[in-house]
Amino acid sequence: MSLKIAIAQVNFIVGDIGFNTNKIIESACYARDQLAADLVVFSELSITGYPPEDLLLRPDFIARAKLAVDEIALATLGIDVLVGLPELADEGLFNSAFLLRNGGVLVRYRKNALPNYGVFDEKRYFIEGDGCSLVSVNGINIAITICEDVWQAGILAKNKAAGAQLVVTLNASPFHAAKIHQREAVVVAQAKALQLPLVYVNQVGGQDELVFDGASFVVDAAGEVVFRAEEFKEQISLIDFDGYHPVKGQCAPLYSPIASEYQALVLGIRDYVLKNGFQGVILGLSGGIDSALVLALAVDALGASKVDVVLMPSRYTQSMSNEDALEEAKLLGVKHHIVPIESVVVAFNTLLAEVLDDGVGGVTEENIQARCRGVILMAMSNKQGKLLLTTGNKSEMSVGYATLYGDMAGGFAPIKDVPKLLVYQLARYRNSLTAVIPDRVLTRPPSAELAPDQRDDDSLPPYDILDPILERYVEQDQSAAEIIAAGYAPEYVYRAIQLVDRTEYKRRQSPPGIKISPRAYGRDRRYPITTGYKGV
Amino acid sequence: MSLKIAIAQVNFIVGDIGFNTNKIIESACYARDQLAADLVVFSELSITGYPPEDLLLRPDFIARAKLAVDEIALATLGIDVLVGLPELADEGLFNSAFLLRNGGVLVRYRKNALPNYGVFDEKRYFIEGDGCSLVSVNGINIAITICEDVWQAGILAKNKAAGAQLVVTLNASPFHAAKIHQREAVVVAQAKALQLPLVYVNQVGGQDELVFDGASFVVDAAGEVVFRAEEFKEQISLIDFDGYHPVKGQCAPLYSPIASEYQALVLGIRDYVLKNGFQGVILGLSGGIDSALVLALAVDALGASKVDVVLMPSRYTQSMSNEDALEEAKLLGVKHHIVPIESVVVAFNTLLAEVLDDGVGGVTEENIQARCRGVILMAMSNKQGKLLLTTGNKSEMSVGYATLYGDMAGGFAPIKDVPKLLVYQLARYRNSLTAVIPDRVLTRPPSAELAPDQRDDDSLPPYDILDPILERYVEQDQSAAEIIAAGYAPEYVYRAIQLVDRTEYKRRQSPPGIKISPRAYGRDRRYPITTGYKGV
Repeated sequence: MSLKIAIAQVNFIVGDIGFNTNKIIESACYARDQLAADLVVFSELSITGYPPEDLLLRPDFIARAKLAVDEIALATLGIDVLVGLPELADEGLFNSAFLLRNGGVLVRYRKNALPNYGVFDEKRYFIEGDGCSLVSVNGINIAITICEDVWQAGILAKNKAAGAQLVVTLNASPFHAAKIHQREAVVVAQAKALQLPLVYVNQVGGQDELVFDGASFVVDAAGEVVFRAEEFKEQISLIDFDGYHPVKGQCAPLYSPIASEYQALVLGIRDYVLKNGFQGVILGLSGGIDSALVLALAVDALGASKVDVVLMPSRYTQSMSNEDALEEAKLLGVKHHIVPIESVVVAFNTLLAEVLDDGVGGVTEENIQARCRGVILMAMSNKQGKLLLTTGNKSEMSVGYATLYGDMAGGFAPIKDVPKLLVYQLARYRNSLTAVIPDRVLTRPPSAELAPDQRDDDSLPPYDILDPILERYVEQDQSAAEIIAAGYAPEYVYRAIQLVDRTEYKRRQSPPGIKISPRAYGRDRRYPITTGYKGV
Repeated sequence: MSLKIAIAQVNFIVGDIGFNTNKIIESACYARDQLAADLVVFSELSITGYPPEDLLLRPDFIARAKLAVDEIALATLGIDVLVGLPELADEGLFNSAFLLRNGGVLVRYRKNALPNYGVFDEKRYFIEGDGCSLVSVNGINIAITICEDVWQAGILAKNKAAGAQLVVTLNASPFHAAKIHQREAVVVAQAKALQLPLVYVNQVGGQDELVFDGASFVVDAAGEVVFRAEEFKEQISLIDFDGYHPVKGQCAPLYSPIASEYQALVLGIRDYVLKNGFQGVILGLSGGIDSALVLALAVDALGASKVDVVLMPSRYTQSMSNEDALEEAKLLGVKHHIVPIESVVVAFNTLLAEVLDDGVGGVTEENIQARCRGVILMAMSNKQGKLLLTTGNKSEMSVGYATLYGDMAGGFAPIKDVPKLLVYQLARYRNSLTAVIPDRVLTRPPSAELAPDQRDDDSLPPYDILDPILERYVEQDQSAAEIIAAGYAPEYVYRAIQLVDRTEYKRRQSPPGIKISPRAYGRDRRYPITTGYKGV
């Protein structure tokens, strides 16, 4: 008795049911014809892509997904196909998986456990299923489960009791740092406890704020990982079974933590740009570390020919900033433009001096510079059909050290979830592959260069203190008292928290960025703007 | 046997537990000392304000809310107080109501039905309670329920079966057009069916995108509304009972639909500005209908002394636009500034001509004008500490007829959920009170005035066709086929839907605005940016 299961780790486009249907059919036929698989398993909600968000409220969308089932079933005769889709029933909408055989639906499974935390809103759309769904393939009893189901011990045990010899699970599990270890540990523990082998199929690809990292895997009944697909890549792989015991296969090595974060950012940029049909990207290059990193990421994601950079020096820009920016453009082989902002800044200052009682100055003047750069970049983006990338990092996004409609302007913010210290680490990591960022950019003190001799630490705590405070407050929900008790100086803690609390209005208007931390800004952290809550 | 219940329809500040606690204590003491009430009932989650969103994930916040219970109980001896708060128990977090008597908690109720649709995310935070909680006050058995509970027939029936003679319900039910009729109809039907009188206490006030309209009411066992508090105002009212039968009292008349929408916008602006501590507001006045309406709303919300307007004419601005804008400023008595944008637009066009192959032009040039205005308004906002109001309407927000970082710049977008046709109706309504918007503004064809002789209907379907198409597509989730079947020309339907689908990226960066429709943009409509879904 033998069994061959193909894992289809593929990159869907959310909402594009025609594209996804074709991809499922092609992949299934490949698994049947080239791999001789008995069963091919796709990821969660494969027909719609994940997460479809409020498209799930549209009756036409749900009806279209249903039609795709017949199309797939009829086009994949000769192989069992397990796909995910929203299923409208009398009771309501379910997050379902259908096992297709002989041109029709043989077994339906309705997801039991619906995540409704973090970036997930599944209870907004779906009602919970409550049964097991087993299907016999080559005489093996296979239980079907979906994502969150396998994080809850009771559900796998219920399937074991119902006679499951093997579990397959359809997933859309987004990346964050070290998530893969957490994910494998959960599944390994359950497989071991229940002595139940498990095939875990994950989506791969970028979708707005999320990156799905793939890294599908198989665990045997002893809890050993016997197969792992590559991270961040499409891959259709065949798993051989001896009875219901998976035969040991290829385990793709895991990236180091820093490499996986870098790859997640690259994939997130690539898919946002390509899936949204942009010709390429444009970004402002300041000579600072943030834009240097975003440039490297963009080139790695899209190739140098798709990336333009713009230097926009002002009277406060040091010559080494221009030199370093030019060097970065040269090292990565991208086209650069130089647009000095002096003339437009002077025009605004002159104009506004007439209406502002004591003239422009201070933060207002700094913001005008940043906004003039925003206007220039958006004009170039408009004219060339290129997406403007915003280069702000998570530390800035946290404390509001950024100008709305200025340096915050842009369609996508790749490093929005990357704290400043991690920006440096990622830059060093990238340089360890090939040197693309000049050393001086890594060593000089960071500055916004909006005023003479300005440095970030003039108005912010040093980043090696600020970043851990922010992580505790924003990602771990610690109070000021807890952070101080952990050894941070009260004045820094109070200052940082106060800035985070006050900055929600800016974050609400910031472009989406790629989640790489356990809690990113965006769908993942939903705070009121109007609030009397003060962390301190 | 008699009973006196005070309804405390008050305006809380989300997250400001100190403020809310004081307000609860003051209101309860007033109900005890001035009204001789036996029981005072507050709205849902009164201690934290509603909705606290992800503040509910913070342990320090939940602990602080718990402390407030003791503080309130000890400060309100001599009257029963029913307040709402998040309650952390072994099982998890509940959306609870506590009945306080004699300095302690007498009865706890845990909300059974948790809304997780539209603007609501309660299953993100809370787990469902499943029991009834009755309390005897002056010998009357009173059942405690919370908001969504009374929209589900089973829950009131369960309370009736448990011996309830009277139901009180703590609510945070946000406004949208005609919602009050829906709300009262639901409660009336249930009261009548179960022959159970019901006291409905609603929050009042603006909170980011939401306005809570108050209009608390009492229904007797025959299903008659025997008391109604005013809409959009704080009010503490006493209801007399004969046994458990409410005695007929004052029923505040309901506003007309248009008047209620106007009042919702006024309250939404006022609370956003005041609760966020702004000195006042500033807005660009173009001579068009949108900014004219926003100006009138802002003055009605804050008073003329808190409102500044800025005229920013360009070479494309018609003289009648300036005349009308000046007339509006004069009629409403607000301070105006005139800042012609020619010099800064020329400076940008000159600068950009050097880097753009065929120079600035077309939409790029239009956007530059809009963004120059954005820079000017933000500089004035920065310098004066005044909130910039954005004047775009829902029709524009739907189809993307607006410039990111240009006319979309601002901290708050009061008419973001008001379609263009309703903008005209609201303007006429306001003029029916006192004439503040010149007739010509109401009758001339709308234009963005970013190019010579430009009119909105050069690039958009006429608003009397566009607006109903948008309502069907955005608010009712109808497909193109359904909208065409309803009699709309295919070319208009396809064009409108395509524009809506493409504009999500702009909406994601737009400031919050006030929800007045059944489905607003923002928390209420969560669409992916990256999507292959096409409504057509």
